[in-house]
Amino acid sequence: MSFLFRIHIAVLIPFLFIASALEAQDDSMLGFSAESAVFQRQLEASLDEQIDRDNLQKWMERITAKPFFVGSPHNKENAEFVKKLFQEWGYTAEIVEYQVLFPKPRIRKVEMIAPERYQALLEEPVIAEDSSSGVDGRLPSYNAYSADGDVTAELVYVNYGIPDDYKELERRGIDVRGKIVIARYGGSWRGIKPKLAYEKGALATILYSDPRDDGYFQGDTYPVGSFRMKWGVQRGSVTDLPLYTGDPLTPFIGATKDAERYSIEESPAIMKIPVLPISWGDALPLLRSMGGPVAPASWRGALPITYHIGPGPATVRVHLEFDWNLEPAYNVIARMEGSEYPDEWIIRGNHRDGWAMGAADPISGHVALMEEARAIGVLAKNNWRPKRTIVYASWDAEEPGLLGSTEWAEDHADEIREKAVAYINTDGNGRGFLRMGGSHTLERLMNEVAREVEDPQTGVSVWQRVQAQRAISGNTEVTTRPDLRINPLGSGSDYTPFLQHLGIASLNVSYGGENRGGVYHSQFDSFDYYKRFGDPGFHYGATLAKTTGRLSLRLANANVIPMRLENFADNVELYSSEVMDLLEKTRASIDRNNQLVDMNAYSLAADPTKTYVPPESEDPAPYLNFAPMQNAVSRLKESAKNLDIEMKRVMETGATDTEIQSLNQLLKSTERLMTNNNGLPRRPWYRHQIYAPGFHTGYGVKTLPGIREAIEQKDWDEASEQIGIVADMLNQVSEALEQAIRILKS
Amino acid sequence: MSFLFRIHIAVLIPFLFIASALEAQDDSMLGFSAESAVFQRQLEASLDEQIDRDNLQKWMERITAKPFFVGSPHNKENAEFVKKLFQEWGYTAEIVEYQVLFPKPRIRKVEMIAPERYQALLEEPVIAEDSSSGVDGRLPSYNAYSADGDVTAELVYVNYGIPDDYKELERRGIDVRGKIVIARYGGSWRGIKPKLAYEKGALATILYSDPRDDGYFQGDTYPVGSFRMKWGVQRGSVTDLPLYTGDPLTPFIGATKDAERYSIEESPAIMKIPVLPISWGDALPLLRSMGGPVAPASWRGALPITYHIGPGPATVRVHLEFDWNLEPAYNVIARMEGSEYPDEWIIRGNHRDGWAMGAADPISGHVALMEEARAIGVLAKNNWRPKRTIVYASWDAEEPGLLGSTEWAEDHADEIREKAVAYINTDGNGRGFLRMGGSHTLERLMNEVAREVEDPQTGVSVWQRVQAQRAISGNTEVTTRPDLRINPLGSGSDYTPFLQHLGIASLNVSYGGENRGGVYHSQFDSFDYYKRFGDPGFHYGATLAKTTGRLSLRLANANVIPMRLENFADNVELYSSEVMDLLEKTRASIDRNNQLVDMNAYSLAADPTKTYVPPESEDPAPYLNFAPMQNAVSRLKESAKNLDIEMKRVMETGATDTEIQSLNQLLKSTERLMTNNNGLPRRPWYRHQIYAPGFHTGYGVKTLPGIREAIEQKDWDEASEQIGIVADMLNQVSEALEQAIRILKS
Repeated sequence: MSFLFRIHIAVLIPFLFIASALEAQDDSMLGFSAESAVFQRQLEASLDEQIDRDNLQKWMERITAKPFFVGSPHNKENAEFVKKLFQEWGYTAEIVEYQVLFPKPRIRKVEMIAPERYQALLEEPVIAEDSSSGVDGRLPSYNAYSADGDVTAELVYVNYGIPDDYKELERRGIDVRGKIVIARYGGSWRGIKPKLAYEKGALATILYSDPRDDGYFQGDTYPVGSFRMKWGVQRGSVTDLPLYTGDPLTPFIGATKDAERYSIEESPAIMKIPVLPISWGDALPLLRSMGGPVAPASWRGALPITYHIGPGPATVRVHLEFDWNLEPAYNVIARMEGSEYPDEWIIRGNHRDGWAMGAADPISGHVALMEEARAIGVLAKNNWRPKRTIVYASWDAEEPGLLGSTEWAEDHADEIREKAVAYINTDGNGRGFLRMGGSHTLERLMNEVAREVEDPQTGVSVWQRVQAQRAISGNTEVTTRPDLRINPLGSGSDYTPFLQHLGIASLNVSYGGENRGGVYHSQFDSFDYYKRFGDPGFHYGATLAKTTGRLSLRLANANVIPMRLENFADNVELYSSEVMDLLEKTRASIDRNNQLVDMNAYSLAADPTKTYVPPESEDPAPYLNFAPMQNAVSRLKESAKNLDIEMKRVMETGATDTEIQSLNQLLKSTERLMTNNNGLPRRPWYRHQIYAPGFHTGYGVKTLPGIREAIEQKDWDEASEQIGIVADMLNQVSEALEQAIRILKS
Repeated sequence: MSFLFRIHIAVLIPFLFIASALEAQDDSMLGFSAESAVFQRQLEASLDEQIDRDNLQKWMERITAKPFFVGSPHNKENAEFVKKLFQEWGYTAEIVEYQVLFPKPRIRKVEMIAPERYQALLEEPVIAEDSSSGVDGRLPSYNAYSADGDVTAELVYVNYGIPDDYKELERRGIDVRGKIVIARYGGSWRGIKPKLAYEKGALATILYSDPRDDGYFQGDTYPVGSFRMKWGVQRGSVTDLPLYTGDPLTPFIGATKDAERYSIEESPAIMKIPVLPISWGDALPLLRSMGGPVAPASWRGALPITYHIGPGPATVRVHLEFDWNLEPAYNVIARMEGSEYPDEWIIRGNHRDGWAMGAADPISGHVALMEEARAIGVLAKNNWRPKRTIVYASWDAEEPGLLGSTEWAEDHADEIREKAVAYINTDGNGRGFLRMGGSHTLERLMNEVAREVEDPQTGVSVWQRVQAQRAISGNTEVTTRPDLRINPLGSGSDYTPFLQHLGIASLNVSYGGENRGGVYHSQFDSFDYYKRFGDPGFHYGATLAKTTGRLSLRLANANVIPMRLENFADNVELYSSEVMDLLEKTRASIDRNNQLVDMNAYSLAADPTKTYVPPESEDPAPYLNFAPMQNAVSRLKESAKNLDIEMKRVMETGATDTEIQSLNQLLKSTERLMTNNNGLPRRPWYRHQIYAPGFHTGYGVKTLPGIREAIEQKDWDEASEQIGIVADMLNQVSEALEQAIRILKS
């Protein structure tokens, strides 16, 4: 079906009811009256008709024609291009600029000086099969916010360089103090690796991509297949993202021209030692020259060598120097004013900056956002307007650490906290399965939408494919629970400032899993690659636009903000049982350890010809008073259930505008109640009490992080304190829900 | 301590009580009165004093000086040498000869003809660091009992080539009919691989050693480290060992000169397609040239390639021809007549033939057997004789399929069934932890001995090290159960004809785990290697001699044969609960599968761009009547407990010789009651109803094999029938125990 033909249908019969093969199990639609649901389905059918895969491909080709990292000329051009399109589509659009710290390398040297010499190439090759691989103006491979430095030391292989790996090193009596560590990518967020290495006394960190993780072990390598080639390098930020996101110099405030800034030395988020990513082609000579104990089985990658830990004899010099300049970050912010509730915002964002050619990350998601916005623009030209304001955000400077979104969120914190109903994020996208993450108040909405979007490969709903995938992987709940659980969010994309700093209910949506490869943050995340391996035909780009378009439209048009609190309560109950279970498992593990220590079992089971430092006995874990949290969860479940009953009744029997508006005000602010102005322990910027990235583990989410991380760290006093904080927080949410029930019952 | 000094002590104070630092938890000794236990401990202390590590080294060096495979000149020399030594040590010794089928290769060719040419080298190199690597008269690398053949076909990579792997191939729509399969070693006994390939229609099988399994992935390779080098090849037999062991031409009967033999064509145990083992050096060019789907993650080895399944484009010619000759197998059988019960035999065996230089396999165990025999010979020169007859067996032709031991066992089946109390087997040995396998009637004995043998590296008992190792690995039972469980026996060494064909209570003992490497069945299983990596200083060889020496002496000297039936009953109860659990798990798995089929989940979760054949629904599993087995287990537990009480009483209060002799007769025959003259379904040679190698899986044990394998194969009628057979068998054992109780109570 051609582009024109679709426009034609949309223009002629925009609101004709188009029967969908994929209706939800009943016709009800969360937050909508029966009548308004019929209209909404018509609207969404028209949205689908608008979506044109050719646009996605065309825009991606243009945007990724040249490198578009922060501060690059083409990034600015892209911002202008996107702004202009938004304006053409009927939005008010502006470029909002911040001045952010964005270091770029001046000197990058990794050289092995013993037992033999090897100078790392640190270059990704130009290949005939990838037309952008030789393009001018590329940013070399590096880790943003690495320290400057010139150090020479013996190498220690630390596997993924995560906390458990250092425990293994300890068992072997190996200390990284005064050494350079080499860690493979994977197992955690990259920034954790140099941070831990620094805390353990290492002088520098080399990161590399082992072919086990995204290279030939996984599949054929580019350009034959999709996986990482010998010389491919993963760039990326190593700012201390679990501490705060955004410009490392301006936590809590917008990085405006005149903002008060930390000096580079003062910034707690900037890495204290040099870090550089290299390819496995450059890592192999180093790793091959290592001695010392053979690495544990789970540490071994796919290089054709015996992996040794060291230290040495490989001795390496790492020399890095950066230009530490402020660069402009250009967020494009476009609005379509709401017809009824202009001060209730649905924010819909995707970043626009990329490390190299950035086709998958982030343009695959960005062009879907654009097509969604264009389609809604077309709908809005046909005598329809969203009830609420839709704000589209094309973020800059996400790659160095969510700078564009964070600075905007910090800069407009009060307004956003007042007005934002929800934030919907996308980032990279590809062929495969729907991935749903976010606030559990939005779980039902997400499920309703997923049940109505068709998977382009199988013709069933995208919901059914996810259900099938989870069922196959052994999840039995999916055949009985009405909604598929959406994943709680850690960090790693632009939802973080909204969800975890400001307390805005958020969703993060993508497709993927059948687009596996190894070009992430390398030169080969290119248009040529994406067309072959990312999403051939841009079918899933279109599907993403239909999915997030529905989310935007439902949130914008619903009579009552489409949140369902029972889903929230159900997940909180799960997390609360998890943290209680964690304590019991920790107790059992400590007891078991102490028994093994008493038996001298560690030493007796160890090979006496090898260095082995047995674990020591630990203090037993106390029992903690979880009752306040348990009582709060019970209350929450009850109030959530009752509110859902009342809301359903209201949808059927109607309510006054005032009641509805009061209810919406309460629903809108629910997520804010989950935050705490003091933030989490040792990281006040992270305020959400239910979702946070792991302080010690990076991107990966920790639910009920205050309690969970205290138990993980065996800080029992803090765990007790955090139980109280979480109980208070849940009680505040329940209080609000009970207030809403009273309004509706009155 | 020198050899002479030790002899000196032993001669002067042979029966002086030498206090051991490693006494059992109490002084009681299974089968011994308090008085005879004191004597026995003196005897065992004297045994320890005799053991001289230098002998082990000296004999190994001599025996492994030249290749000593079946029919080789040095094998004959070794037989003569061993016989002469036994005679010098006071044994009556003879060489018992059989004529066994032992094919040797005349033509070995593996050649890739497309997409490019590669001629496999099929040679292990001569290396300076290994003095025997270039020795004359070596047997080339091959698989004994491969078929002759010359076939050319596309290659299919089948991972380990075990049943689960073919299920994966089926899912991908890949058929091996008319193809040549290439399988890596590991995951099962090698003979299963070509057998399955043949059943699935393949024309030939290539086996190779992936560096993932015993090469550079595991550790440094020989001669730097102990793991398999690029060109190292694992030889080995591919006779259908789970059907019967021994000469493939003479099941059930001794392969005497005039025995009636199958023709080669008639033998059901000889492989029907050509099979050849190759090194990874030879496998790499083939595997690198494969196309088709990428192999599942668990199939991928450590070669620096993307593993593809094929078929092709790699097209390979395999051409093998063998000389199918009978060769003499020389068992050395040595006896020391029992002073009181000459017709009660303790048989103690280790094989003596090796594929190449055979230092670890089998000579490391064989020299321990020799030193044990020598030490007992010394004890016997000092006015002491064992009460029962000890028979030492130096088996020939184990490598091609337990031929020496099986032919002797079959040839003397009636006498062995009448006289044998127990068979104690050893094979390869090395540094590390005690490994105990065998009949559970001997579990307590094995534990008692293990508690009194000192680990040469740590000074604690070898029992404690195993306990520690199991505790560390998460086994919580070891801190509460008085005895460490011994492993049930499958097959893979010379205990099989005794245990599983004749029903003789058996043990299989070795040390290992700290001798890991990759020279198994290769040219580099050499004296040079063994001294460095197998058991430096032969400390564990000496420890093995002390361990098995104690086992031999206790079995030979005990007043009452040292079996404990409660241990047996306890393990049988475990196995019976396992098979019931297996049915429940099978039922759940079928139900789950059917649910997934009904949901169409398999197809929806699959990548539509790849060939995928979803599983079909299955008939639900019925409930089976396990009650007869459960009742029999209850009775067995009760009668075992009561017999142990009675035996303990007798040990304390005494009994008449007639009573003791009647009791011993009953104990001796207990294991025979566990056999069934009809054998197991489809393999009448395997008669034991509790222990068997897996019919479809090879060496690995299947306990209660009749029931277990029927459930695994979802043959519910056979499972029901086998429950009855097992119940009857257990009731017969209980009957015998109850008879023994009556004798002792009378």
